[in-house]
Amino acid sequence: MTAADGATTTRPLLIDTDVHNTLHHLERYLPREWQDRWMATGMGVGWNYQNPRGVSRRDVMPPNGAAPGSDPLFVLSSHMDRYGIDYAILCGPGQIPLGVDPDYMNAIASAYNDCGEDLWLSVSQRFRGSIIVNADDPLGAANEIRRRAGNPQYAQVLFAAATRSPLGRREYRPIFEAASEAGLPVAVHPGTEGAGTAWPPTPVGWPSRYMEWHNILPTAYMAQVNSLVTEGVFEDFPDLRFIAIEGGVAWLPHLMWRMDKNYKALRDTAPWLRRLPSEYILDHLVLTTQPIEEPRDPEHLAQILDMIDASRTLMFSSDYPHWDFDNPDLVLRDIDPVMRARVMGGTAMEVYQLREAPAREDLPPHAGGLPPVTGSSLGAGPIE
Amino acid sequence: MTAADGATTTRPLLIDTDVHNTLHHLERYLPREWQDRWMATGMGVGWNYQNPRGVSRRDVMPPNGAAPGSDPLFVLSSHMDRYGIDYAILCGPGQIPLGVDPDYMNAIASAYNDCGEDLWLSVSQRFRGSIIVNADDPLGAANEIRRRAGNPQYAQVLFAAATRSPLGRREYRPIFEAASEAGLPVAVHPGTEGAGTAWPPTPVGWPSRYMEWHNILPTAYMAQVNSLVTEGVFEDFPDLRFIAIEGGVAWLPHLMWRMDKNYKALRDTAPWLRRLPSEYILDHLVLTTQPIEEPRDPEHLAQILDMIDASRTLMFSSDYPHWDFDNPDLVLRDIDPVMRARVMGGTAMEVYQLREAPAREDLPPHAGGLPPVTGSSLGAGPIE
Repeated sequence: MTAADGATTTRPLLIDTDVHNTLHHLERYLPREWQDRWMATGMGVGWNYQNPRGVSRRDVMPPNGAAPGSDPLFVLSSHMDRYGIDYAILCGPGQIPLGVDPDYMNAIASAYNDCGEDLWLSVSQRFRGSIIVNADDPLGAANEIRRRAGNPQYAQVLFAAATRSPLGRREYRPIFEAASEAGLPVAVHPGTEGAGTAWPPTPVGWPSRYMEWHNILPTAYMAQVNSLVTEGVFEDFPDLRFIAIEGGVAWLPHLMWRMDKNYKALRDTAPWLRRLPSEYILDHLVLTTQPIEEPRDPEHLAQILDMIDASRTLMFSSDYPHWDFDNPDLVLRDIDPVMRARVMGGTAMEVYQLREAPAREDLPPHAGGLPPVTGSSLGAGPIE
Repeated sequence: MTAADGATTTRPLLIDTDVHNTLHHLERYLPREWQDRWMATGMGVGWNYQNPRGVSRRDVMPPNGAAPGSDPLFVLSSHMDRYGIDYAILCGPGQIPLGVDPDYMNAIASAYNDCGEDLWLSVSQRFRGSIIVNADDPLGAANEIRRRAGNPQYAQVLFAAATRSPLGRREYRPIFEAASEAGLPVAVHPGTEGAGTAWPPTPVGWPSRYMEWHNILPTAYMAQVNSLVTEGVFEDFPDLRFIAIEGGVAWLPHLMWRMDKNYKALRDTAPWLRRLPSEYILDHLVLTTQPIEEPRDPEHLAQILDMIDASRTLMFSSDYPHWDFDNPDLVLRDIDPVMRARVMGGTAMEVYQLREAPAREDLPPHAGGLPPVTGSSLGAGPIE
């Protein structure tokens, strides 16, 4: 589908690009040799930074009292139908942290994917999956991508933003190669910065508390975008899209401008580049909205969206069911309506190749915890 | 001096807040027990990232053929007189890297300061010095500050932005205490990120080349500002100004907005704070211009300057004699003239307590390598 096709769709789709679904009873999906370790230690890594009030909203617990995000039917009714969301990109736990044993981490990634197919993707075509991989073993990750790529319900490859080295380094090329072969974008998610065997979450060491750590997470994204562009990943994989989930937005102008300025003086140190760094960024990088920065003066955010050409580079995400959830009825409500339609679904239709609205399933009665919103949540009518 | 006083000065001063003066023959200023080590190993640390063409401009070599930045008289004539610069804040080598031996690093810091007083501060009142300290030994650094603070030619305390832990952590309080007692701002300078025993320069490890490393240096500054504010340093030292030299500008709106948003949800984890994080930032943080980001659309930079209230938070710096020098006649030439006068000198007058223009010295003939610019370099006349 081209952008022009997308623009002529009668109703712009609403696509939530970051929904967290619980993948539980992982021991059922792990090979026998890992089950005892999982039951005894779980992931087996230290986390260091944890929200003192937990990460989930307390108002989205399913009627059966299970954990928020654990019931597919309740996600469909209480989140997707409530806000008129056509597709949810399921991100599971978001990522696997850096650990010492690549075989164990690969097995967990694969079990996550089996569990997701079994409990979630089978329930509704409105769910689109992430192939969760352990990027710390790039060859193993490439194998996992190739094994899953035949399932058209997968929308992207997903791993932790907190990698051991910047993603432009050559050791990660097998991941991008496998994703490109499958026609899938590659996405990263925050949360494991400073966990497991990761480096400290900042170039100057360890922040003291969760809020301070959370404030600074986008710097890992800046480092990844810088590396991907400078090391020529988008020259090697010209159709690749890189999705920076939940990593902030307003830092991008700074990074583009600084990279362009240095490139003019030092471009012979990256001779494989043929364009300005910012041109690669605008063509290949996609950010997600939540948590969107909220300056006192809304005009300032509108200016930032202009600087990053947000109609091409920004996709709506809610982060359901997490604590800092963004409501699609409220987020970016006052920006230009044409840009908003692109952000709320138009760009995601292209990035994830979602051509039209899926059929709504009839849900069983227990699924309805909250009354669904009727009509489009995007406004008074179609935006052309 | 108050802001109002500054605004009524007849001619706004031009103050260059980042000039690198060479501090050579350090062995003459080191105690006997360190001289052999210095002659044999110098600083004794690995640097990892070095500009393939060196860091200095080739057009500012003194007539005697010595290194750029090594001749005080030539700096006065070829840089300060040429551009009409009233004061230069001398930053020496910028910083001391993180090493293993605090005694050795403390001794080097002290030798730098002795050398700077001997070879530079004694030459002209237009030179203002930095008390260079080894922040990795905060108690030693505090001693060095107290030992130098009686000399009114010192304008600031200076150390490497690449610290071992974020600066808000309690172990660094003695530095801020000593600086506050002396009424001096505290400044950091980039260059040692990833050098010596520093952490990797990004939360995801080691970039592959100098350009990539240089692109991402501002993330260390973001981490430091985040920590200083969150950990309450500006509550403990309400008169302290923190100067982020050469760390970029356009990232600040993002950081302020993200910190404010998280603070609203998680402020009970930093109960010593009484205001929004952005309010501390705007009152206590000062950035320097070079290297200023240069978007294709100059209006975008003007918008960023508005977002950060640049009349209060930004000071001109040239980075003389380094490769990415900014010319004071050209930098930010098209911004609002009142804001420009604040950036080029008004704010620095307050931050460094420089009340009036100093007398120009008569320089000996050898000093004149380039013809001085006559008149004010700021424009057609005084800006009130």
